[in-house]
Amino acid sequence: MEEPTPEDDTALAFSVFGSACTSRQALQNVTGRWGVLAIAALSDGPYRFNALRRRVEGVSERMLSQTLQALERDGMVDRAVLEAIPPKVEYSLTELGTEVAVALRALIDVVEAGMPTVTAAQEEYDCNRA
Amino acid sequence: MEEPTPEDDTALAFSVFGSACTSRQALQNVTGRWGVLAIAALSDGPYRFNALRRRVEGVSERMLSQTLQALERDGMVDRAVLEAIPPKVEYSLTELGTEVAVALRALIDVVEAGMPTVTAAQEEYDCNRA
Repeated sequence: MEEPTPEDDTALAFSVFGSACTSRQALQNVTGRWGVLAIAALSDGPYRFNALRRRVEGVSERMLSQTLQALERDGMVDRAVLEAIPPKVEYSLTELGTEVAVALRALIDVVEAGMPTVTAAQEEYDCNRA
Repeated sequence: MEEPTPEDDTALAFSVFGSACTSRQALQNVTGRWGVLAIAALSDGPYRFNALRRRVEGVSERMLSQTLQALERDGMVDRAVLEAIPPKVEYSLTELGTEVAVALRALIDVVEAGMPTVTAAQEEYDCNRA
């Protein structure tokens, strides 16, 4: 057997390329349509449900609720019920969620900064096929 | 009006939080179920279609084809037809695609390294609701 390099070793433990690996679903939960925006928003600090829903423009109550549940189950988001009348529920990132958020914000920065390139590429692509 | 901080300024140019901003779709194309894996795979080097399909375990021909088209249109992926009989088609990352890949690999590393935490959180979540 070949000696695995340190990189291979990490890849073997959990690899998102394997269709049955649980890490693929965890990655999908943080990169999904609303998961990525919820985590990026929560990297600004804790949010209550409705404030988060306003921040993540266009998300339905149902979808945000499902998204937060999946992220809470994966240990990315903490859900805290604060003593108040009526009780307040606040969402925040866990330590792992914060690490994920840092990586996601870096990705978002690359995409946002690259938008002039993206737009130019789209125009060229569409013209060549018109 | 409040003076925008530099961070706000960047966010105003292109913001994935705005439901109508084109950057949201571009982000979704690189973080989508197959987009993220295709880009991460291509960060190892160019791939021909079938080899890429084997690497991104579980993707159908149709979905991989749609994914690559969207990424090509966004200027993330180059599609090169190599002179040969039969002609060979090779996919590789553009400069922007490479930047995105670096950010995505960092994200994947965080998720894969965090899987013990994720698994423990899932078990606790499921037990508390059983």
